[in-house]
Amino acid sequence: MEAHQHWMRLAVTLAESARGQTSPNPMVGAVVVKDGRLLGTGAHLQAGTPHAEVHALNMAGDEAKGSTLYVTLEPCNHYGRTPPCTEKTIASGVSRVIVGTRDPDHRVAGEGIRRLQEAGIEVVEGVLEQECLRLNEAYFHHRRTGRPFVTLKTAVTLDGKVAAPTGDSRWVTGEASRLQVHRMRHWHDAVLVGVNTVLKDRPRLTTRLPEGGSNPIRVILDSRLRIPLDTPVTEVSEAPTWVYCTDEADPEKEKLLRKKGVRVVRTSSGPHVNLDAVFTDLGRKGILSVLAECGGRLNASLLREGWVQKVVVFIAPKLLGGKESPTAVEGPGFAKMADAFSLHDIHVERFGEDICVSGYLPR
Amino acid sequence: MEAHQHWMRLAVTLAESARGQTSPNPMVGAVVVKDGRLLGTGAHLQAGTPHAEVHALNMAGDEAKGSTLYVTLEPCNHYGRTPPCTEKTIASGVSRVIVGTRDPDHRVAGEGIRRLQEAGIEVVEGVLEQECLRLNEAYFHHRRTGRPFVTLKTAVTLDGKVAAPTGDSRWVTGEASRLQVHRMRHWHDAVLVGVNTVLKDRPRLTTRLPEGGSNPIRVILDSRLRIPLDTPVTEVSEAPTWVYCTDEADPEKEKLLRKKGVRVVRTSSGPHVNLDAVFTDLGRKGILSVLAECGGRLNASLLREGWVQKVVVFIAPKLLGGKESPTAVEGPGFAKMADAFSLHDIHVERFGEDICVSGYLPR
Amino acid sequence: MEAHQHWMRLAVTLAESARGQTSPNPMVGAVVVKDGRLLGTGAHLQAGTPHAEVHALNMAGDEAKGSTLYVTLEPCNHYGRTPPCTEKTIASGVSRVIVGTRDPDHRVAGEGIRRLQEAGIEVVEGVLEQECLRLNEAYFHHRRTGRPFVTLKTAVTLDGKVAAPTGDSRWVTGEASRLQVHRMRHWHDAVLVGVNTVLKDRPRLTTRLPEGGSNPIRVILDSRLRIPLDTPVTEVSEAPTWVYCTDEADPEKEKLLRKKGVRVVRTSSGPHVNLDAVFTDLGRKGILSVLAECGGRLNASLLREGWVQKVVVFIAPKLLGGKESPTAVEGPGFAKMADAFSLHDIHVERFGEDICVSGYLPR
Amino acid sequence: MEAHQHWMRLAVTLAESARGQTSPNPMVGAVVVKDGRLLGTGAHLQAGTPHAEVHALNMAGDEAKGSTLYVTLEPCNHYGRTPPCTEKTIASGVSRVIVGTRDPDHRVAGEGIRRLQEAGIEVVEGVLEQECLRLNEAYFHHRRTGRPFVTLKTAVTLDGKVAAPTGDSRWVTGEASRLQVHRMRHWHDAVLVGVNTVLKDRPRLTTRLPEGGSNPIRVILDSRLRIPLDTPVTEVSEAPTWVYCTDEADPEKEKLLRKKGVRVVRTSSGPHVNLDAVFTDLGRKGILSVLAECGGRLNASLLREGWVQKVVVFIAPKLLGGKESPTAVEGPGFAKMADAFSLHDIHVERFGEDICVSGYLPR
Ligand SMILES: [Zn+2]
Ligand SMILES: [Zn+2]
Ligand SMILES: [Zn+2]
Ligand SMILES: [Zn+2]
Repeated sequence: MEAHQHWMRLAVTLAESARGQTSPNPMVGAVVVKDGRLLGTGAHLQAGTPHAEVHALNMAGDEAKGSTLYVTLEPCNHYGRTPPCTEKTIASGVSRVIVGTRDPDHRVAGEGIRRLQEAGIEVVEGVLEQECLRLNEAYFHHRRTGRPFVTLKTAVTLDGKVAAPTGDSRWVTGEASRLQVHRMRHWHDAVLVGVNTVLKDRPRLTTRLPEGGSNPIRVILDSRLRIPLDTPVTEVSEAPTWVYCTDEADPEKEKLLRKKGVRVVRTSSGPHVNLDAVFTDLGRKGILSVLAECGGRLNASLLREGWVQKVVVFIAPKLLGGKESPTAVEGPGFAKMADAFSLHDIHVERFGEDICVSGYLPR
Repeated sequence: MEAHQHWMRLAVTLAESARGQTSPNPMVGAVVVKDGRLLGTGAHLQAGTPHAEVHALNMAGDEAKGSTLYVTLEPCNHYGRTPPCTEKTIASGVSRVIVGTRDPDHRVAGEGIRRLQEAGIEVVEGVLEQECLRLNEAYFHHRRTGRPFVTLKTAVTLDGKVAAPTGDSRWVTGEASRLQVHRMRHWHDAVLVGVNTVLKDRPRLTTRLPEGGSNPIRVILDSRLRIPLDTPVTEVSEAPTWVYCTDEADPEKEKLLRKKGVRVVRTSSGPHVNLDAVFTDLGRKGILSVLAECGGRLNASLLREGWVQKVVVFIAPKLLGGKESPTAVEGPGFAKMADAFSLHDIHVERFGEDICVSGYLPR
Repeated sequence: MEAHQHWMRLAVTLAESARGQTSPNPMVGAVVVKDGRLLGTGAHLQAGTPHAEVHALNMAGDEAKGSTLYVTLEPCNHYGRTPPCTEKTIASGVSRVIVGTRDPDHRVAGEGIRRLQEAGIEVVEGVLEQECLRLNEAYFHHRRTGRPFVTLKTAVTLDGKVAAPTGDSRWVTGEASRLQVHRMRHWHDAVLVGVNTVLKDRPRLTTRLPEGGSNPIRVILDSRLRIPLDTPVTEVSEAPTWVYCTDEADPEKEKLLRKKGVRVVRTSSGPHVNLDAVFTDLGRKGILSVLAECGGRLNASLLREGWVQKVVVFIAPKLLGGKESPTAVEGPGFAKMADAFSLHDIHVERFGEDICVSGYLPR
Repeated sequence: MEAHQHWMRLAVTLAESARGQTSPNPMVGAVVVKDGRLLGTGAHLQAGTPHAEVHALNMAGDEAKGSTLYVTLEPCNHYGRTPPCTEKTIASGVSRVIVGTRDPDHRVAGEGIRRLQEAGIEVVEGVLEQECLRLNEAYFHHRRTGRPFVTLKTAVTLDGKVAAPTGDSRWVTGEASRLQVHRMRHWHDAVLVGVNTVLKDRPRLTTRLPEGGSNPIRVILDSRLRIPLDTPVTEVSEAPTWVYCTDEADPEKEKLLRKKGVRVVRTSSGPHVNLDAVFTDLGRKGILSVLAECGGRLNASLLREGWVQKVVVFIAPKLLGGKESPTAVEGPGFAKMADAFSLHDIHVERFGEDICVSGYLPR
């Protein structure tokens, strides 16, 4: 069992190393071992390219016969853009497969394991299961609900302000925290803001790391299409931009945006963008994970309607003050402190002088 | 040197064990040692009772001759309510005194050390100096400025709210944090609130620990004496209550409050209580440390005028929301994020699920 | 309970600070507390001087009325060189006594607690009991068996040698380890060696610390009184020396040794010193703790006959080699590896580059 | 730089995962990255199979163009059993190569880096250099000296015994330590013992782990070929056995051993096997690492003649005693304690109840 954990840990490390690049597929790592010797390693790198098992089994070659395959997620059993990994595994002569977690995708859902067992392969499930579930929390959520896993990220002063009453917010946190936010953008499929943030800050919402990184799709909630045509996020050469509006939006403006390459989606007839429609659309488009970097009003709506799964708050040890200083979650708020959303699995980290608190909302 | 630190650490432990009970005197610990053997231990327990050195030297008795005295603070050299410790030390035949820090009190200020050296006693200064300075940060501040050391304490949700828009705030934090606040009340000479807090919450502002503890003096800032006569803090049998108002306050109300035993102090003629007058008065009354448990408006004034030395924020991992939810520091706030007060010597602790962040304001 | 542990921890710290100076009495610490305020602290410093409770209650004075007394060991209830602490406690008006452990001394043995309860004082037992038992492991052993608690201490190379085949052993371990050994001598009532060590190394067996320390009684096992008259340990001005021999020893030599102030004890008629007689004598003389710093042959006898309770081995990370190099435990040894003495409660520390492994023999 | 270390750490993890299976080649890990995205991973798995870079670049495919290659060891620039990795790297269009350490092999020795630079590829050296050097300490030693890196492993009681005077040694250490020894056998190319160990213990000297593992070559030093024909190590179906003897060995016995498949090497004419000849032969045969599990006499010779680089001692917290109990290093030993071999870079670990101390001999 100790050896099982040793090799599964390597598979998890491999999977995790591709964070931010596999969507809409999950991160998966695979390791082939025989007689205590490593024969192959693999990670799934990008949708449409070979699965982790394929890389690992290819590296192992003929040696795979009689070996043990460690894989963080149940092997697929269906023809997608690549042939089923179960068949490749069976053909390779693997005698045992150690699986971290089952794949909830309806095309797999235990069928991968069933197929392997049918072929006479021994299957052991649940090795480092918690780590494997956490690794793909976005993917599992998406498969369970059809909607993306939303992480609400904000940066506040120790007295809970996201900006001065003037709107000035450069910078709440220090450099180490800001680097981490760029890493988080790289890890997420999409970043979400309201049009007010676009108007106020003219953000690019891209991933700017010394080492590079993928840009998330920029999702803008903008009921009446107030987004300027000359703001950075309308330059789709850097990254796609999807704007969600209502039927009240001006069709002319929509036409101009589309001409620039911006995807515009009308969600409803009311005064506000319909969040259900937004997240349903994102889920359908294969967006597994969304990093919400919104202002207090939109954050409040996201939370109230239950769209948020995880919260990450960077706290700078400074005091700004200001009754009119905006805060991270506004809206009406709860009338009773006892009704506030309690986070669980709290994790506290330091980035430079800042404190980063993260946790999960109750399901 | 290793041995010096060993024994000074015991002296610091002894001093610290009397936190909350020595004011207006500093906490002091003393240890008498000869030939590597402990001969006496002492802590200063309460103003008017023997100093730490006296307890330790008494315990040592005749054995003190030729010994080394470790003391966290320079021995006094003047007649107060007790005779000078320097004379007691000299008379005991101590040959060496190890001092943590000098005493900035104008009646000591190096004179204690000078007197010992004159008497032929070797003096070593600066052993565990940082610990000894931190131990009595309130006392040192008071001696330097004539005003109390103010710790601003607040409890917020992760989104920076101290209460719901309705004012409901029961409870922001968990039981472990609330116990710690009661310990902090025990450690401080006074607790400070504005009258709004009294009106809204009807607090007792006492120390309620299973094991008991001292109640701080309750300092209420109440320009127009709006404090009700039948609210808990006017019951001075539990603890003294000092109300600071302006000249606009109703003399009749003042009379009634005084009759109940409340001390009423008029600080100025303007619409607001003069904070300089308040802290000058507190300093003169020998109040070394104040725990400010105020609302956002008063906190803002305290910070803006520079009365706060330390900040302790208990953060509950929950999200309340509410544009109108009050926050820990309000007032006008800074117009630029870059101007916010930066805290230093940041310390992060957990109390139950809560995160407690503390730090110091720049001098 | 948290507060109970807080104050008992202070009592343990106080007790421990007098390690090495209380014998034949146990180390005891006491703290007096009321309403969460420290009123008195005390440690037992030396046999014949006041007990910990007395120091603490004296410091508390009249304030002790209605207070809680924390004491690491059950208060005594008998007249020794000082009056019973139970009476002092009752007279002081203490309302509650928190006891770490019962005192196994036949003159106490629950009688102290019974007396307090009879007088209407609430008694809580068992707070930090494990720490309190470990603190006085020597005393408890002595009271249970009548013999001293023996710690076998040795210093070896990583390949298990205590000296070169030539006998050279300067130095096995580094300076930090050697300092620790001197601290251990200060902590023990007696140090034990065989005459061969005296002949070979001419040791002083004293405590040589920069800060001073008490010298243990030097116990020499020397069946035929081969000890030279001019070796350091016969100079009893530094520390007492007790030599145990057999009836075969030369009476003339004995006379000369006695003249120098050495205590000589004949234990038996056989060729070897009777260890039972030695430890019985030491126990009767009130020796609670013995640090055995013997060679391999004597260590083997001590272990085989079951006189050793604890083992402390300093291991220097060096390799000396030598089939004839002496080792820490010699004698015949066990014929089967499975029969070796297994130590429990193993503790590993570093002193400089050396590794110090300690553990306990099964009872 | 932070990102460089992040990806190099993954490369080191990959390399290390193949410990015990790459000899006579070094362990190497490689990672291909572009724009912060992982494109390929590889480890060298076995001599004669593709190098780490090849696996990683193959996985990356066309994406490798413009990417950064992280590799723990300088890429090779010569035709061995596989074509030079420099050419593959250049052909792949990699723009930057980050190298952990240079390869001291005379066929590489900076030529790999030179070739890459010539081709216009930017090369950064020295990222995680210490980790990369430690990873292949055996390989580097072999390339520098032509001889294998020898780790002397032993298991002793706390009093330094490897067996009872009867020879009984089952078991010195606990199960966790013994498992670790089997892991160490898997990691080493050869295990070395003297014939006495073979005669006394009839060991198999194989790797027995629940998960399997490679068996090291069994090297037996046996000057006069006293090895029995029917002892486990002469069964070469499990693992090769190489016996080193002198010219005095019986040619008939040699013939019988050879018939069983044992390799027999005559090293000299004297009474003892010539260790220089043994290690020179092992080095020439491509043995990088030897785990010496010898008795005290042979250990002493190995150390005295300077063949040992690293020492790993498992210490069981038990006391066996015995003047005649064998110890880990015997022979004549040093005459002066000050001359003992001092180990450096000491590391202390626990395996179950046992303490494992390891360190390096001075070069
Ligand atoms: Zn697949
Ligand atoms: Zn004084
Ligand atoms: Zn007593
Ligand atoms: Zn290569």
